[in-house]
Formats: sequence, C-alpha cells, structure tokens
Amino acid sequence: MSGNDTLARLADVIAQRRGGDPDKSYVARLFAKGNDAILKKIGEEATEVVMAAKDGDPKRVVAEVADLWFHTMIALAAHGLRPADVLAELERREGISGLEEFAARKAIRREGGEASQ
Amino acid sequence: MSGNDTLARLADVIAQRRGGDPDKSYVARLFAKGNDAILKKIGEEATEVVMAAKDGDPKRVVAEVADLWFHTMIALAAHGLRPADVLAELERREGISGLEEFAARKAIRREGGEASQ
Amino acid sequence: MSGNDTLARLADVIAQRRGGDPDKSYVARLFAKGNDAILKKIGEEATEVVMAAKDGDPKRVVAEVADLWFHTMIALAAHGLRPADVLAELERREGISGLEEFAARKAIRREGGEASQ
Amino acid sequence: MSGNDTLARLADVIAQRRGGDPDKSYVARLFAKGNDAILKKIGEEATEVVMAAKDGDPKRVVAEVADLWFHTMIALAAHGLRPADVLAELERREGISGLEEFAARKAIRREGGEASQ
Repeated sequence: MSGNDTLARLADVIAQRRGGDPDKSYVARLFAKGNDAILKKIGEEATEVVMAAKDGDPKRVVAEVADLWFHTMIALAAHGLRPADVLAELERREGISGLEEFAARKAIRREGGEASQ
Repeated sequence: MSGNDTLARLADVIAQRRGGDPDKSYVARLFAKGNDAILKKIGEEATEVVMAAKDGDPKRVVAEVADLWFHTMIALAAHGLRPADVLAELERREGISGLEEFAARKAIRREGGEASQ
Repeated sequence: MSGNDTLARLADVIAQRRGGDPDKSYVARLFAKGNDAILKKIGEEATEVVMAAKDGDPKRVVAEVADLWFHTMIALAAHGLRPADVLAELERREGISGLEEFAARKAIRREGGEASQ
Repeated sequence: MSGNDTLARLADVIAQRRGGDPDKSYVARLFAKGNDAILKKIGEEATEVVMAAKDGDPKRVVAEVADLWFHTMIALAAHGLRPADVLAELERREGISGLEEFAARKAIRREGGEASQ
C-alpha cells in the first residue's frame, strides 16, 4: 500500500484494533457493542456535519466529516468491506457516465413521481 | 491510482460541474439549490447507509456509503474544502496518538458526565 | 380538542389514506413505496428540524417538527401502532420516576463506559 | 390543562426541569450543554427509530419514537415553542386541505425538478 493511501491505512488500523481490549480501544469497544452502536454513530456524526456546516465553521466541518468517514469505515469493516470498495464504486460511476449517473440512478429508482420529494 | 487520488479527482469533477447548467448536471443543480439542500442529502444518505447495513446487504452498503461520501465532498466544496483536508485530519489523529484520540477528544468535549449519552 | 385527540385524528386520517390511490394521495404513495421510503423521510425530516433550529427560525422549527411527527406517525402505522402507544409510553415514564428515567434507562443501556459517547 | 393532554403536561415538566440542577436532571443537563447537544440527540434518536423499525420490533419502535418526540419537545422549548404549536400546525394542514397539503407544499418548494430526489 502506498503511503498516500490514507483510507486504506486507516482501514488496516481499524482491522487491527477490532479484536483488541474494549477497555483500552474505542474501536474495539464499538465493535463489541455491535452493529447498532456503530450505525447510531453514523446518524450522530452526520448530524454533527450538518451543524458544523450550518455554523459555517470550516475547521469543524473537516473534523466532523473526518468523524463521519471514520465511522462509515468501521461500518464497512463490520460488513467485511474496505474503503477501496467504495472508491471503486465512485470510480465506476465516474468512469461509465460521469457523476450524473447518481442522478439518473436515483431518478429511476424513484420513478413514478414523488410530489413531496 | 491511490484512494487519495480517487477522492482528489472526484473533487476536481465536482468543482468543474459546480458552475454548470443545473438542468443538465445534478451537482450544478444541488449547488444552485444551496447549502440546506446539500446538507439535507447528508442526513438522507446517512439514513440510507443505516438501512442498507441493517439489511446486511454489502453491495447496497457500498453504494450508499459512496453516495454519502460523494455528498460530503459536495458539502466540503461548498465550504472551500477538499477531501485532502479530511485525509490530513485523519492522518494527524492517527499520527499523534492513534485512533484512540477520537475517544479521548470526544470524552474531553463531553466531560462533566452525561448520563444519557 | 386535546393534543391527544389531534394525534388520534391524524392517525385516523393516515389509516384512511393508506389504502388510497398513490397517484392522488401522498400518504398512499409513501405506503406503496414501502418501509424504507418511510424511514428515509424520518432521517430527512430530522435533518430539516436540525437545520431550522440552527437558523433559529421558530416558524420553520414548528413546520419541520410537524413534518417529523407526521412521518413518525406513518412509521407507527406501518407497524400497526398508534400515537396513543407513544403517549402511553411517555406517560408511563413520567408516572414511574419522572423524566429522569430517560437518563437512567439510557445510562444502564450503555453501561460499561463509553469514552467517546 | 386536561388530563388527557400528555404532550402539554410533558412540556410543563420540561419547562420546570429546565432550570434545575444539571447534576440531578437530564433535562437541565441537556439545556446546560446548549442547542447543538439537543439537536444532536434528534439526529441520534431519529437513527434509533429507523433501526428499531428495520428490526420490526414494535415495542422498540414505540420507545424510540417516544425518545424522539421527547427530544423534539426539548428543542421546541429551547425556541420558546410548545407542542401545541406543532399540533396547531398539523390541524391547520389537515383543516385547510387535508394531509395532501404536505405533498403540495413540498412539491412547490422543490419545483424545477430534482432528478435525484
């Protein structure tokens, strides 16, 4: 792994901490608590990103997005996945038809009209 | 290409689309709608990650985390930030004291006891 | 009409609309889309409450909390539940030991120490 | 206040606890921590509602919706609002044009087409 692959390295650290002592490691503790505890953190950290952005505080936006990405990586690990899977998906979308595929994909998924959305 | 490069390239594409035609580009449309529309997507996509994970569907987990990261990158761009800023923050935390800093930082932030947390 | 009555009447309206024509009724359309569509709205509306509150806009806070409660009532209906079940739970907590039970209950649920929480 | 007005009574209890001792009262503690702590709980509890619903556990759905409503009532109080304001808004919508106003209102707000929504 190249030195500039931050997420891959972070995933390795998460994998290593996963089986550690829950009393000493935050990551081990979160895995010990189980899936719902991990997912709850995603809802929580997403809310913190929103609040930091509403405050227009770039430093806090960075810190909260880091928290959110970190906890999504824990969720990925809990499902046997790695950041590379997400990056490959992002590349795939961009490669095939550009980012606009996001819109197209979701529009198809939600077709039939959704007045309130 | 490293993960860092993938995110950097994606940020470039977002920057490029940003000023485009809202009728043709999803990214341009989201920027045109403004900050709240972007942030709302973060709450929405975080919820979709949680639902995919509850369903134990790895393929959907990857797709929804990709959506969530993509929209956090749009929020970063809206604040003049880039994924590199988040990666640097993640590296910094790891560098100083390992991931355990997450726990310490949050514990300090929340000190004074929070029974319900 | 008491607040309890308002919620009960709203639940009746939801139940009535549930089986209606998805092309004409937002409620029917949401039920037709299924559980995930309903739950996604809860994540979305919760985010809108947070944003309205950050903006300090009381009128929008009221409107967004109304949206959030309305969609939680749809989720309740999807599980064969009614607002009265939630009100009974709120009364029960208050009756036994006051609102402080919230704190105690959660503290117990999360016992064992959670540095980052 | 009539005995069957659960939310109004709960709002009174919240108002009473608000100025209490943060060491003894969860409500006092949450107010002492400020707006962001309250709003974060809304994101957190919304996520818990979603997870309970995904598990199809009616008892937990009731408990988590109770948590969510309780914390939205704290957010209302923080803005000088009461549940009656939300109930009046829900009645108003129902009274004027039925629940379908939700859809119409949001559709207008989002007009111009939103492929990805």
